[in-house]
Amino acid sequence: MAEKITPRLEDFSQWYQDVVVQARLADYSPVKGCMVIRPNGYSIWEQIQKDLDARIKATGARNAYFPMFIPESFIKKEAEHVEGFAPQLAVVTHAGGKKLEEALIVRPTSETIINSMFAKWVQSYRDLPLLINQWANVVRWEMRTRLFLRTTEFLWQEGHTCHATPEEAEEETQQMLKVYTDFAEETLAMPVIPGRKSESEKFAGALRTYSIEAMMQDKKALQAGTSHNLASNFAKAFDTKFLDKDGKQKLVHQTSWGVSTRLVGGVIMTHSDDKGLVLPPKLAGTHLVILPVLGKAANPAQILEKCDQLAAEIKGSNEARKLPYSISVLIDKDDTKQMGWKFHEYELLGIPLRMELGARDLEKGTIVLTRRDTGEKMFVPFAEVATKVATLLAEIQKGLLEKARAYRDQNTFKIDSYADFSQRIEKEGGFYVAPWCESRECEEKVKQETKATIRCLPLQSNYQPFEEGGACLVCQTKSKPRVRAIFARSY
Amino acid sequence: MAEKITPRLEDFSQWYQDVVVQARLADYSPVKGCMVIRPNGYSIWEQIQKDLDARIKATGARNAYFPMFIPESFIKKEAEHVEGFAPQLAVVTHAGGKKLEEALIVRPTSETIINSMFAKWVQSYRDLPLLINQWANVVRWEMRTRLFLRTTEFLWQEGHTCHATPEEAEEETQQMLKVYTDFAEETLAMPVIPGRKSESEKFAGALRTYSIEAMMQDKKALQAGTSHNLASNFAKAFDTKFLDKDGKQKLVHQTSWGVSTRLVGGVIMTHSDDKGLVLPPKLAGTHLVILPVLGKAANPAQILEKCDQLAAEIKGSNEARKLPYSISVLIDKDDTKQMGWKFHEYELLGIPLRMELGARDLEKGTIVLTRRDTGEKMFVPFAEVATKVATLLAEIQKGLLEKARAYRDQNTFKIDSYADFSQRIEKEGGFYVAPWCESRECEEKVKQETKATIRCLPLQSNYQPFEEGGACLVCQTKSKPRVRAIFARSY
Repeated sequence: MAEKITPRLEDFSQWYQDVVVQARLADYSPVKGCMVIRPNGYSIWEQIQKDLDARIKATGARNAYFPMFIPESFIKKEAEHVEGFAPQLAVVTHAGGKKLEEALIVRPTSETIINSMFAKWVQSYRDLPLLINQWANVVRWEMRTRLFLRTTEFLWQEGHTCHATPEEAEEETQQMLKVYTDFAEETLAMPVIPGRKSESEKFAGALRTYSIEAMMQDKKALQAGTSHNLASNFAKAFDTKFLDKDGKQKLVHQTSWGVSTRLVGGVIMTHSDDKGLVLPPKLAGTHLVILPVLGKAANPAQILEKCDQLAAEIKGSNEARKLPYSISVLIDKDDTKQMGWKFHEYELLGIPLRMELGARDLEKGTIVLTRRDTGEKMFVPFAEVATKVATLLAEIQKGLLEKARAYRDQNTFKIDSYADFSQRIEKEGGFYVAPWCESRECEEKVKQETKATIRCLPLQSNYQPFEEGGACLVCQTKSKPRVRAIFARSY
Repeated sequence: MAEKITPRLEDFSQWYQDVVVQARLADYSPVKGCMVIRPNGYSIWEQIQKDLDARIKATGARNAYFPMFIPESFIKKEAEHVEGFAPQLAVVTHAGGKKLEEALIVRPTSETIINSMFAKWVQSYRDLPLLINQWANVVRWEMRTRLFLRTTEFLWQEGHTCHATPEEAEEETQQMLKVYTDFAEETLAMPVIPGRKSESEKFAGALRTYSIEAMMQDKKALQAGTSHNLASNFAKAFDTKFLDKDGKQKLVHQTSWGVSTRLVGGVIMTHSDDKGLVLPPKLAGTHLVILPVLGKAANPAQILEKCDQLAAEIKGSNEARKLPYSISVLIDKDDTKQMGWKFHEYELLGIPLRMELGARDLEKGTIVLTRRDTGEKMFVPFAEVATKVATLLAEIQKGLLEKARAYRDQNTFKIDSYADFSQRIEKEGGFYVAPWCESRECEEKVKQETKATIRCLPLQSNYQPFEEGGACLVCQTKSKPRVRAIFARSY
């Protein structure tokens, strides 16, 4: 019945695709580069939305919705912006049976259309800061796509803010980077490195881009979220000005920040294994599946009744109330399916805990509880089940983060020899931390010769503390290197 | 400072626009026919989504996401479908810097793209029913647009289901009509008439369309939601088949159903008044605004402290816990704004309750509470405030529905003379209920001569009970009329 999942060590890319398709998270669509997000995958996105939306609102931002069509002339108003996005645009030329006078671009991001409204809404310093967020679909035409990780259309949230001073804009940019960092670690159980992007990797139109970078199980980096300080670049293009307290008209200082459905791919590649999906409990739609083992049991009704009773106890326990979600329990009473099939299915779907209860268990007053993440099996007395389930869910959430962090740290190396680096990135993969002279030439050389890029210049002062100075990994210049860069191959 | 809202009786259409724009619910965008939903308006949509999403999930449907681009050839596969939508399509002809081999349509609705996936996912009767819902943006090119009510791009949810038998499909269609009816009345406080659409008004590609119809304050009808029995029309076009228990390959029977951001416009036109927005508490982002009256008070700190204390009591009261939402309280301590300005502003924004507390009130141990819907003012002792606020919120929710229902019933008339009808629809407006012979000629004559249409053939047997028989309102034929139709002008 069941298809086989390619083991990670055999072919990581095929493993990923097998998990996504077999767990029915997403599917290929008949439209080139576009995916269908199936209910199992969309449910993960819904959990992400709910959790992150609350964090965004807690910063004072409010949700709004802007048109997905952008007049072509708007995209062209900011020079770097149009240069960066031009190759990826989808263009509506006809509508309502006629050729349009001006072509419309399907938004690849919304800085331009939003600035055209901000220019109207922002009049005075009293209107600032203006903090807006939008949950929407965007389109960037891509040649090579992968489910969740890179698709022509994807879902995301994009925040757009206006501030009175450059300092406030920078503060907002970094605040949102912190929100993403906390969210990734606390909710996705995905450890990330917040850092600044190099000039060549920054957003088209930004003064400065920050990102959070995660390590996947194949030791490649995934950019999991970005936060941009736009300075007044778009404000200039759209004349977004305010009357300041000193009576002068000034351009606003702006930021934008976003995460997308790509995070679902990141979660899969961080936690899952050769049996299928592994989900942190905060993202799981179902936390526990209860399997009554009826087989040849003389008392099936009693077993089923006990399952119902335990499910109710689990949901109503004091420990459960301490969790930031309601425990969702599925009791699979379908007796047309084999137990082996059920084990396989629920492991594939990544349900964090599985409980079995049969005739012998009922006699002994215990159940069998199995963790999806570690495979650990426990016999738990009825009276302790409710507390145990809630405690384990919290442990799994924490354990997944710790495991992923340990894996990343084991595969992150300080390095000073370019020759060593070139060999190791090819053989072992991983993150390589080294001084960098900040020249585009050195960055480009690394890219050409090793297929690695500068993922970021990490912000965390406590992340692998460095000695001062050191020579640039690439050109060995000693005069400039004030920064450390993380070099890695990436998605 | 404040702009004036045109009174409803002077110009209803201008009144509506004034409320929408001045309460900052939505704004015109630079893209023809597209609107910007501002935070105050989007917050209403978020409440709608949250409430309706739970009701949809309770029926067993799960959310998913399908590409917004549909290959042109797909749209053309169902003959009535393409005929109905062709004039409204937006077409992407170029992407990634090249002309596309096949043009892509921006979805006007998703039956076709979804069927292309259903055909792959549905194999056996075990896969049925398949119940999917999607929250998405859609585009229908419109000549004459109005904020929320009719825009080129709008947000909606669209459910799409597959069933094994025609009976199950019909049952699902009617079940969702019931979900929409309950949702409209219980949450939007908008009374609706569920009914069947005439042949000429049904969805392009459906066997049968049902809708809920509401009366606005100008006595025009608003179609507030639709539920379609698609039979096997799309299944035929996409070969969506399943292996039934009897070993035979059969076409699935399908439904689709949706409501959109148009509901926000409907809510506004149902409840609001010449002072601005009136919102049922279930849709309000803020339920109560507390205005400390500091003026020349000798003890401002004490007044502010009491406000904080009352706010905490209100949120934590036993009565509050009985409400299906958490009471959200705003304390406006801004002393740079005049009290008159604040009254005006919070009435405009539709906050259901306003509380004032000044030095005299503090002495007397009472506050002043004002209902937004009726304008009623009450003096409430401190000890009773928490209970009173929660009770009033429940009353307002109920009162708005009753008021709207009474208004609709007062403006709904049984009629048998076509001459009377033609005069009255022009002079008074309203809903006119009459027998109809079900001929397209009579329907078309009404439309041409009176600008009224058949809104629906009501389902509710208890809605204005009719005698059997009667002659068709238009042609006076007595042989056929088995149905009653509601004739009205509409949005």
